[in-house]
Amino acid sequence: MYRPAIKVLDCTIRDGGLMNNWYFSDEFVRAVYRGLSASGVDYMEMGYMSSEKAFSRDENGPWKFCRDEDIRRVVGDEPSSLKLSAMVDIGRIDYDDIPPRDQSLLTMIRVACYINQMDAAIAMAHHCLDKGYEVTINLMAVSKVMERDLDEALDDVAKSRVPIFYIVDSFGAMYCEQVESLTKKYLAALPDRTIGFHGHNNQQLAFANTIEAIIHGANHLDGSLYGIGRGAGNCPLELLMLFLKNPKFNRRPILDVIEKYLLPLQAEIEWGYHIPYVITGVLNEHPRSAMKFLGDKQGSFVEFYDQMMEFAPVD
Amino acid sequence: MYRPAIKVLDCTIRDGGLMNNWYFSDEFVRAVYRGLSASGVDYMEMGYMSSEKAFSRDENGPWKFCRDEDIRRVVGDEPSSLKLSAMVDIGRIDYDDIPPRDQSLLTMIRVACYINQMDAAIAMAHHCLDKGYEVTINLMAVSKVMERDLDEALDDVAKSRVPIFYIVDSFGAMYCEQVESLTKKYLAALPDRTIGFHGHNNQQLAFANTIEAIIHGANHLDGSLYGIGRGAGNCPLELLMLFLKNPKFNRRPILDVIEKYLLPLQAEIEWGYHIPYVITGVLNEHPRSAMKFLGDKQGSFVEFYDQMMEFAPVD
Repeated sequence: MYRPAIKVLDCTIRDGGLMNNWYFSDEFVRAVYRGLSASGVDYMEMGYMSSEKAFSRDENGPWKFCRDEDIRRVVGDEPSSLKLSAMVDIGRIDYDDIPPRDQSLLTMIRVACYINQMDAAIAMAHHCLDKGYEVTINLMAVSKVMERDLDEALDDVAKSRVPIFYIVDSFGAMYCEQVESLTKKYLAALPDRTIGFHGHNNQQLAFANTIEAIIHGANHLDGSLYGIGRGAGNCPLELLMLFLKNPKFNRRPILDVIEKYLLPLQAEIEWGYHIPYVITGVLNEHPRSAMKFLGDKQGSFVEFYDQMMEFAPVD
Repeated sequence: MYRPAIKVLDCTIRDGGLMNNWYFSDEFVRAVYRGLSASGVDYMEMGYMSSEKAFSRDENGPWKFCRDEDIRRVVGDEPSSLKLSAMVDIGRIDYDDIPPRDQSLLTMIRVACYINQMDAAIAMAHHCLDKGYEVTINLMAVSKVMERDLDEALDDVAKSRVPIFYIVDSFGAMYCEQVESLTKKYLAALPDRTIGFHGHNNQQLAFANTIEAIIHGANHLDGSLYGIGRGAGNCPLELLMLFLKNPKFNRRPILDVIEKYLLPLQAEIEWGYHIPYVITGVLNEHPRSAMKFLGDKQGSFVEFYDQMMEFAPVD
């Protein structure tokens, strides 16, 4: 029996944009929107909402900013039950950058933060709640957070009005045992909130870890088409949609968008399974060194492995 | 703390050969042998041992037959703790095709069978044990076996002298819950035997399912370099070796072979993550229809999905 409380969010544009500075064509974004809409996915993340003081329009496509006119141009007036979200990064957004809910096509704002930004994230989340949005906090890189600090963060969220709190395996470092342990911890600390899970696929575990999170009670799940995302990418949305049994879901439109838009894109952008991403994942490190290695196209896997093993304790 | 009882078997040549009719160059096989040998992997499967009455030398490379002179030519006299195995398929091998142990470089024979061949498989296993080999039975496609029949097979194995019995997810259809359930069932029926696990990667779950099998007590684990194998391929050996903590393991030689030999091969042979394999995996079907679809290079994912959904109940 399927679990009606489970909601699925697609982060194709937002996380995939980390690989191409959000330079997706309007046609691409529209095809993703229509495919997700027809498939019964609950949320589509259109990108980051960022301050233009923090990032330049010259170096970033429209989905780094998620201005309403851009969303409106792509989405048009088509009726859809697909809700739209944008992610804000603490430190790269001002309160004034967030439009009032009734002047926006967005339904949800997701607040991404690191552990030392929890207070700012909760304040931002309350600001967005007060403006009328649905809100999540996505605590990134939790695989690097000390337990004492995580307990304090969970306590802070418990005292807040934040309804959804995400486990984020930013580095693709977790095995199922860590996911089980964290999901149980989050739910024990926040029994009246929704727990989310966002995985990365460095060790081909993003989908498996998402299932593990579901088994232990997570109800807000991220995926992306064909797993597109930074480095090794995310949980492939198509796998998740084929696993979930909610009869409202239709997988055909998703397969169609993958074939027509994601396969061609993969010839240009190299996300997915690569040994350097495996190595940073296993070492619980940010993928930036692996991305640099792959971009430089020099040095061997063994040299990269040796280098990472030697320097692993130093960030 | 690592589990010394865990043994790792590489099936790069045997399962990978299903994609190129075992036409690997001697240089390739030798590089795999040396890499595994230096890495501390326990077993290397050299291929299938088949009767030349069942298959033609004109259509299959040497690793479809695993004759001793071929193995000897590649392996040479290098001292190594790496044990060699070959797989026999019930119906494609005669007792006389199996050389006496002292005339062979092989240490282990793995007997692959379907549920209706269990009696023949046990007889073959006993024959190989009597010839002095280590022996496993790998019951394929267990995701299609009815519980009543599986219970009888387990009972037969319990009464036999077969020391190692494998769970084989031939179609990449299983989620962690099925792996947990089967591992517990196998171990309950065979408490004094070793349970093995061989996964397929249609849903990117081969590695995750191998971990799940380990957690519940499986100790004989298959993987292949960069996941090479039929269709979506197998559990990537490098992920498994990085997960396991036995200090005898060395991952550098494996990364080196992948870079120098597997990456170039992947430009010729298309194993790995492809939507048609996802679809046959989810439907618990043999990948042959997906391989045909990908080979024909016509029709769309949606057409293939529709066709498979409609015909799913008929094999």
